Amino acid sequence: MNRPFIIDYDRRQRLGFDEVIYGESKSINLLLGLLAEYVNRNQNVLITRVQHKKGKALLKKHHSAFFDKESGIFMLKPLEGNDEVKRVGIISAGSSDIGVANEAYYTLTYMGIGAEIIQDVGVAGLHRLLDRIEDLRTYDILIVVAGFEGALPTVVGGLLPQPIIAVPTSVGYGTAKNGKTALHAMLTSCSNGITVVNIDNGYGAAMSAFRMLNLKK
Amino acid sequence: MNRPFIIDYDRRQRLGFDEVIYGESKSINLLLGLLAEYVNRNQNVLITRVQHKKGKALLKKHHSAFFDKESGIFMLKPLEGNDEVKRVGIISAGSSDIGVANEAYYTLTYMGIGAEIIQDVGVAGLHRLLDRIEDLRTYDILIVVAGFEGALPTVVGGLLPQPIIAVPTSVGYGTAKNGKTALHAMLTSCSNGITVVNIDNGYGAAMSAFRMLNLKK
Amino acid sequence: MNRPFIIDYDRRQRLGFDEVIYGESKSINLLLGLLAEYVNRNQNVLITRVQHKKGKALLKKHHSAFFDKESGIFMLKPLEGNDEVKRVGIISAGSSDIGVANEAYYTLTYMGIGAEIIQDVGVAGLHRLLDRIEDLRTYDILIVVAGFEGALPTVVGGLLPQPIIAVPTSVGYGTAKNGKTALHAMLTSCSNGITVVNIDNGYGAAMSAFRMLNLKK
Amino acid sequence: MNRPFIIDYDRRQRLGFDEVIYGESKSINLLLGLLAEYVNRNQNVLITRVQHKKGKALLKKHHSAFFDKESGIFMLKPLEGNDEVKRVGIISAGSSDIGVANEAYYTLTYMGIGAEIIQDVGVAGLHRLLDRIEDLRTYDILIVVAGFEGALPTVVGGLLPQPIIAVPTSVGYGTAKNGKTALHAMLTSCSNGITVVNIDNGYGAAMSAFRMLNLKK
Amino acid sequence: MNRPFIIDYDRRQRLGFDEVIYGESKSINLLLGLLAEYVNRNQNVLITRVQHKKGKALLKKHHSAFFDKESGIFMLKPLEGNDEVKRVGIISAGSSDIGVANEAYYTLTYMGIGAEIIQDVGVAGLHRLLDRIEDLRTYDILIVVAGFEGALPTVVGGLLPQPIIAVPTSVGYGTAKNGKTALHAMLTSCSNGITVVNIDNGYGAAMSAFRMLNLKK
Amino acid sequence: MNRPFIIDYDRRQRLGFDEVIYGESKSINLLLGLLAEYVNRNQNVLITRVQHKKGKALLKKHHSAFFDKESGIFMLKPLEGNDEVKRVGIISAGSSDIGVANEAYYTLTYMGIGAEIIQDVGVAGLHRLLDRIEDLRTYDILIVVAGFEGALPTVVGGLLPQPIIAVPTSVGYGTAKNGKTALHAMLTSCSNGITVVNIDNGYGAAMSAFRMLNLKK
Amino acid sequence: MNRPFIIDYDRRQRLGFDEVIYGESKSINLLLGLLAEYVNRNQNVLITRVQHKKGKALLKKHHSAFFDKESGIFMLKPLEGNDEVKRVGIISAGSSDIGVANEAYYTLTYMGIGAEIIQDVGVAGLHRLLDRIEDLRTYDILIVVAGFEGALPTVVGGLLPQPIIAVPTSVGYGTAKNGKTALHAMLTSCSNGITVVNIDNGYGAAMSAFRMLNLKK
Amino acid sequence: MNRPFIIDYDRRQRLGFDEVIYGESKSINLLLGLLAEYVNRNQNVLITRVQHKKGKALLKKHHSAFFDKESGIFMLKPLEGNDEVKRVGIISAGSSDIGVANEAYYTLTYMGIGAEIIQDVGVAGLHRLLDRIEDLRTYDILIVVAGFEGALPTVVGGLLPQPIIAVPTSVGYGTAKNGKTALHAMLTSCSNGITVVNIDNGYGAAMSAFRMLNLKK
Repeated sequence: MNRPFIIDYDRRQRLGFDEVIYGESKSINLLLGLLAEYVNRNQNVLITRVQHKKGKALLKKHHSAFFDKESGIFMLKPLEGNDEVKRVGIISAGSSDIGVANEAYYTLTYMGIGAEIIQDVGVAGLHRLLDRIEDLRTYDILIVVAGFEGALPTVVGGLLPQPIIAVPTSVGYGTAKNGKTALHAMLTSCSNGITVVNIDNGYGAAMSAFRMLNLKK
Repeated sequence: MNRPFIIDYDRRQRLGFDEVIYGESKSINLLLGLLAEYVNRNQNVLITRVQHKKGKALLKKHHSAFFDKESGIFMLKPLEGNDEVKRVGIISAGSSDIGVANEAYYTLTYMGIGAEIIQDVGVAGLHRLLDRIEDLRTYDILIVVAGFEGALPTVVGGLLPQPIIAVPTSVGYGTAKNGKTALHAMLTSCSNGITVVNIDNGYGAAMSAFRMLNLKK
Repeated sequence: MNRPFIIDYDRRQRLGFDEVIYGESKSINLLLGLLAEYVNRNQNVLITRVQHKKGKALLKKHHSAFFDKESGIFMLKPLEGNDEVKRVGIISAGSSDIGVANEAYYTLTYMGIGAEIIQDVGVAGLHRLLDRIEDLRTYDILIVVAGFEGALPTVVGGLLPQPIIAVPTSVGYGTAKNGKTALHAMLTSCSNGITVVNIDNGYGAAMSAFRMLNLKK
Repeated sequence: MNRPFIIDYDRRQRLGFDEVIYGESKSINLLLGLLAEYVNRNQNVLITRVQHKKGKALLKKHHSAFFDKESGIFMLKPLEGNDEVKRVGIISAGSSDIGVANEAYYTLTYMGIGAEIIQDVGVAGLHRLLDRIEDLRTYDILIVVAGFEGALPTVVGGLLPQPIIAVPTSVGYGTAKNGKTALHAMLTSCSNGITVVNIDNGYGAAMSAFRMLNLKK
Repeated sequence: MNRPFIIDYDRRQRLGFDEVIYGESKSINLLLGLLAEYVNRNQNVLITRVQHKKGKALLKKHHSAFFDKESGIFMLKPLEGNDEVKRVGIISAGSSDIGVANEAYYTLTYMGIGAEIIQDVGVAGLHRLLDRIEDLRTYDILIVVAGFEGALPTVVGGLLPQPIIAVPTSVGYGTAKNGKTALHAMLTSCSNGITVVNIDNGYGAAMSAFRMLNLKK
Repeated sequence: MNRPFIIDYDRRQRLGFDEVIYGESKSINLLLGLLAEYVNRNQNVLITRVQHKKGKALLKKHHSAFFDKESGIFMLKPLEGNDEVKRVGIISAGSSDIGVANEAYYTLTYMGIGAEIIQDVGVAGLHRLLDRIEDLRTYDILIVVAGFEGALPTVVGGLLPQPIIAVPTSVGYGTAKNGKTALHAMLTSCSNGITVVNIDNGYGAAMSAFRMLNLKK
Repeated sequence: MNRPFIIDYDRRQRLGFDEVIYGESKSINLLLGLLAEYVNRNQNVLITRVQHKKGKALLKKHHSAFFDKESGIFMLKPLEGNDEVKRVGIISAGSSDIGVANEAYYTLTYMGIGAEIIQDVGVAGLHRLLDRIEDLRTYDILIVVAGFEGALPTVVGGLLPQPIIAVPTSVGYGTAKNGKTALHAMLTSCSNGITVVNIDNGYGAAMSAFRMLNLKK
Repeated sequence: MNRPFIIDYDRRQRLGFDEVIYGESKSINLLLGLLAEYVNRNQNVLITRVQHKKGKALLKKHHSAFFDKESGIFMLKPLEGNDEVKRVGIISAGSSDIGVANEAYYTLTYMGIGAEIIQDVGVAGLHRLLDRIEDLRTYDILIVVAGFEGALPTVVGGLLPQPIIAVPTSVGYGTAKNGKTALHAMLTSCSNGITVVNIDNGYGAAMSAFRMLNLKK
C-alpha cells in the first residue's frame, strides 16, 4: 500500500516557496525516487532531518549534492553567497546547539537569504553578549537558539528592537530533558514581543524569517 | 516592605516602545499611584490584564480613560484612527476568543498600528474562511487566535504567505483545558514558518507584530 | 512459569470476530506455537505489531503467509478482493504515516471489508483535499490518520457527513513527540461528532469501522 | 470590537445537521440576540454548556423553551417522542455522571433519535450489568459514560458487538481528577474497536452516533 | 570512590526478612563480590532486576544458582515446594505480563510462601474470569497484574473479598506507554479496598503479601 | 432523566460489606431519598465526602446521625467502642492531614474495627517517631498518612514489620500541590512491601485494612 | 479525633532554631490555642501562610503581634533591627513577587538576620541590574525571586560569586501558570552553583540562608 | 558552520572559578582541540559528562589525565590531597548513585576542597544513618544524593543543622523514572532549609558548596 509521493508543485505560487521534504521518516528508496524527479525537472530541493546513514547513501548517488551531518540538511545543489547582505543573525550560546543553528542557516541559504551564526554569547558570560550588541543591531531579524533554561532570547529581547524568533533546543538533562523547559521559558518571557517555534525547529525559524522579510519588499 | 514601582523610562530609546504595566497582580492603590505619575508627565500608558473590578475603580478616578472589560486593557488616553491603513488582521473562530483578540487589537492601536478583527472564520466551517482569502491577503501580518484543537493557524498558513503569529487560547474543556492542546498543535503545525506566543497572550502577539513592522520602515 | 496461551474460541459467537494476537511482546517461539495450532484447525489468524525480525522468522516457517513490514501485520492466509465495494477510506497526510494506515487497511481486509488508502491530502496543501471531496463522499466511513498537529480530521469533519475515526500518530518531534499533541487536538476538535482511538492504533480504527458497518446489515 | 455572531446556515446541506451553539463562554446578551434570530426564522436551536444562572435568564425570555440544569442543555422547542424506536443506549455507572449522560440524551432527542439512559450498571457490581446484557443487545449503538478508572466501556466492549462510544467524565478525586485517567484507560482498552470522545463530551458522543446512524439509511 | 556494599544483616530481626539486592544498576563485579560473601556465610540471597547478560555471567560462577530471564530474578539456591498450600494467586491477562508475574512468584517462593500464576483471565474475555471465580476464592491474597487500561483489579475487586494487590505493568503503546494509565486506573478504582504498588513492581507486591500473611500467624 | 439510585443489596454476601455511598457529587435531595430508604429498612449506612453544607442539611432531618466535618463522613447511626482491641494504627505527621486520617478512622469504626490515630510523628522530628516504635508495633496494620514529600511511610516501613497502607494527601504547595509528589514517593519507596491508595483516600485505606483483617479469622 | 498539636521543643537544640508553624491548613481555633501556649512560656513564634481573614482574627486577640498580609507571615513579637549588617539581599523583578520576597524577609528578621529587598531589577531591563552590581556584591548571600520565565537567577549567577538561592514564583499565565516553568528554568540554569527551593517558598529560602550563615561563625 | 569554542578566560576574576566544559554534546575532535589550548597555557581544566568511549579517546592523547568512568569526569591533571580537612560530606543510599556522588566529589577536588563520600546510609535501614550522626556533624556542608522516593535529605535535614544540598538521581523505575519523583520530594521536604539542584547534577551541587564555603573566608 506504499503509494508514490505527490509533489505540491503550486505551493510556490500560493506561498512564494517550494515544498520542502521532511526526511526523518522516509526510507532511502523513497528519497532517491523523489530526488530523481527533481533532477529530471532540473530543480533544486531541500530535505530536512536526514539521518547520518541516509545522508551518506544519498550522497553516493548525487555526488555534487550538499549534506550537513550536524543538522541533517540535504540539498541537491549547494548554494553560496546569493545574498551578500547578512539579513538574519542566528545567535546561540555554544557548540551544543550547532545542529539547530545550522538547520536555520542552511534553510535561509536555500531560500536565498544571507545569514550568519554568532556562537558563544550565552547568559552565563553576559559580557560576551554585551560586547557585541552594536554588531547584533545590524541584522534585520534575530534567531535566538538556546537549550537548558532558555534565558538567552529574554535577555536579547530586552536589549534589541528587532523581530526575535526563539528556538528552544533539547540540549540538557534532568528537568531540561527534551527542551520543554526552554520552550516554556521562551513562551513566558518577560521581554515583550518574542515569538517561538517548536523545539529544535531551526527550519521553522528560518521559514518564519522568510515570511517576515517579505515585509521589506 | 512594599517599595514604589520604578518606571523604566529609557526603554523607548532601547527598544522603540515604552514600558507597559502588567496589571493582574498589582493592587488598585499601586495602579492609581502609577497613573498619577503618568498624568503628571502628560504621557499615555497601557495597562494589561486589569480585572473587571479594578478597571471600574480606575475609571472612577480617570473619567476620560479607556477600559475594555473583555480583555482587561486600560489606557489613559483612548486612541483612534491613528493609522488609516489596516496593517494587521486578527483572525478568530468565534466570539469565545474575543478577549484575546481585543487585547491584541487595543495594544496595536496604542502602538499606532491599524488593525482589524475578522471573526467567525473557524475550521469547522471552512468555506467561510475560503470566501475571504483575497481579503486576508491584503494585511501585512496575520494574528491567528484559536482555542480547542488550534487548527486555524495551520490552515491559514497553508493558504497565505504573510508572517503568521499564532495565539492559543484557554477556551475549551477536557483535554483542551488551559490551552495546552492549542499551543502544542500550533508549535507542531505542518504549515511552514508559523510562530507562536504564550496561551492567551494577545498582547505579546501585538508586540511581535510591532517588531516585524519595523522591517517596512 | 510460562504457561501456554489459551485461545478465546467463542469470541466470534459473542462479538462476531475472532481473537486477534497482539504480537509485540510475544517471543518467536510462543508465536510459532500459536500459529501451529491455527494451521491444525485450518483457520486464518491476524497478528499485530510483529517486529521486522520476528516477522521474517515467522515467514521462514510459513511461506505462504503475509507480512507487511511497515505496519507489522502478519496473516496466515493473505486475503484479496473479498469485498469489491470500497467501504472505508483511509486518509493520511503523507508517507510518514504509512505504517498506521497499512495496519488499518490490512485489518479491514482480514475482516472482509473493502478499503482504500488516500495519501497526500494534508492540511498544509488544502486544495489537494478540496479537489477530492466528491471522491471521499463515496465511502461509508472515513479513517483519518495524522501526526504533528493532527488538524486533518477537524478539516475533514467540517466538510463531510460520514462517521469519522481519527487516528493520531507518533510522527513529529518536539512537542509533537509521541503523538500526544495530535491525540489531544483530535479529542478537542471543533468539528462535531469525531471519534478517536489510541495513538498509532490503526488496528483499533479498523475494528471500530467493523462494528459500525454492522449497522448496514 | 464585539461583532455579531454569523450563523453557518448551510451546514445542514453540507453535513446534514444545523450549527449548534457552544454556550459556555457566551454572555446572556449574546445568547438572547442569537435566540431572537432563530425565533424570527421559526427554527429550533440547541445550545450546550449553558451555566445554571444563564439558563434561568434565558428561560425568563423564552417561557416555552427547555433547559436541563444537570447538563446545561438549552433548546428553544422541547422535543418529545419523535422516534419511538430507542436506537441509542446510554450506559453509566451511577448518578454522578448524570450531567454527561443527559447531554448525550437531549442532543440525540434534538437530532430526532430515540435514546434511553441505563444507570447503575457499574463495574464494581458486575452482576447488575450481566443481568441486562440481552436488553443492551437491542440498541444500535452504545454510549458508555464513566469516570474514576473508566473500566466500564472495556467490560461492555468485551461482551457486546455494537459500535461503542466511550465518554470519560471528570468525576473522581486524586489521580482521577479532571477525567484524564478515565480518558487514557478508554483509549488503551484491551477490548477491540472502542472509540472515544473528549472528557465530559456527551454532546460529541451523540453527534458521533448521529453520523453512524446514517449508515442505516 | 567505589566503596564496598555494606550488608544490612539485622534487617531480619527488625522486619522478619533479609535484605534483598536491587541488581539493575550494579556491575557484574560488584554482584559477584556480594555473592561470594553470601556463599561464605552459607546463606541464600535474592537479587532482583538482573539483566539477561549479567544473569548469564553470574550463572557461570554459580552453577547451582537459579535465574529467570523473564523477570531477572536471581537466587543463590533455588527453592521448591516449601509451602504446599498455595496462599497467593497471581492473576494476569496474558503472556505479555509474564515478567512481572514471575517476579512476584519467585519472590514469594524465596520467602517460603506457596503461590500460583493464573494467566489469560483478562477483561476482554470476561467469561474466562467468571468461570474461575470459585477457584480464585481459595487463595488468601490475590495479586492482580495488568497493563493497558488496567481494568482487571477493579473487576476482580468487585467479585471477591480477599486483599487485592494491584500491579500495573508497562505493557501497551500510545497513552498506555510506561504503565501510567494502568497505575492511575488502579488507584482510582471504583471497587473498594484495592491497594497498589509501583509500575512493574512484582517484587513489591510479593513483599506486601508477605507482610499481610503475618496476620495469619 | 434523573432516575432513582438502585442499592446493591447483595454486596455483603459477595464481599462481606454493604455498599457505601459516594456523597460528593450527589444532591441533598438524592441523599435524603437514599437515607429514607435505609431508615425504612432500619439499617445503618455510610456516606463519604459529604460537603459541610450538605452534611448540615442531612443532620437537620436525621438528628441522631453522625457527621464529621473534617472528613465529610456521615453515618445514620454513630458507632462506638464495638471493638476494644485497637487493630489499626493511623499515623500522620500533623493536624493538616486530619481530614484524611478521620475518614479512615470512622470508616473502620463503621466496619466494626478498633482503630487509633497517632498524630505528630513526622519525619522532620524523627525522635518523636522513634520514641513510639514499641507502641506502634502493637497494631495489626498501620495506615500511614502524609502530604508534602510523603517520606513517612518509607521511614515507618524500614522500622516495622506490619502491613503498611500509605495514603498520600493533597497538603502542600508548589510541586507538592494535589498530592502527586507524595503519591509517587510512596509508590517508589525504597522500603519493601508498602502498598498505596489514591490521594486523600482514607476510605480506601480503611477498606483495604478490612480486607486484610479477614486473614486473622 | 482532633488531638492537640504537640510542640517540638527540642528542635532548637538539634538544629539551632525553633519549630515554625505552617498556618495554611490550621483553623483559627487551633492557632489561638497554640499562641496561648507560647504566650504562657513568654516565647516568640513564627506562623507562615496565614490567610488574610485568619490573620485579622489572630490580631484581634494579640494586639501587639505582627501580621504581613502580602506574605501571610504572623509573629507574636515584631522584631526590628536586631542585626545592623544586611547579610542577605533579596532580589526580585517587580511588585508581583512581593509576597514571596516578604516571606523571606520577615523569616530572616525572625531568625535575627539582617536582610534587604531589592526590587525592579528584572531581566527585561537589564541595565537596572547592571547598574547595581557593586551594591549587590556586598551581601553574603543572594536570594533571587522570579516568576514567568525565571531567568533572573541565571543572569545574577553569571555576574556574582555569592551563594545564590533561587525562588520560583507562581506569577504568570499560560505555560507560566503555577511556577513550574520558572522552577525548571532555575534547576537547569547554565550558570554554575545555583540552588533552588520550592515554588513560592520564601520561607525555605530564608531557612537555607540561615543554615549557610552558620558557616561564618 | 562549526566555529571554534571561545574560552571565557575572565570568569575566574568575576566568579572565582574557571569555565568548566560540558562534554556531553561535544565531539572528540572539538574536545581534543580545547584540551590542546589548555595544555599550551599549562592550565588544568575540568570536563563533565564525558561518555565512556570519548573518555578513552581523550586518555589516549593525554596519558597523565584523569578520567572517572562512573561519572564521566575528565581532568587534565589529577588532583590529590590539596585540602586535608574534609569540608563536604557526600551522603548516598547505595552504590546505584555512585556516578552522581563521584561527579560531586571530583568537582570539589578540582576546586581544591576536601570531600568524602559516605555510602549505604539509606532510609530503609535508618539505624545505619543514626549510628553515624556525630560523624556527619563534623562536615561544613552535606550533599545528600538519592533516587527512588528521595526521602534521605528530609531525614538528614531533620537531624543535622548544616547547609544541605539535595541531589535527586534518575535511579529507579515506574513512577521513579527520570528522577522527577525524587526531585519533587526534595523540593517539598517538610524539613526546613534544604536546597535542591537538578536531577543527577553532582557538578552543580559541588559548585554550590564552593560558593557557600566562600562564607568561611
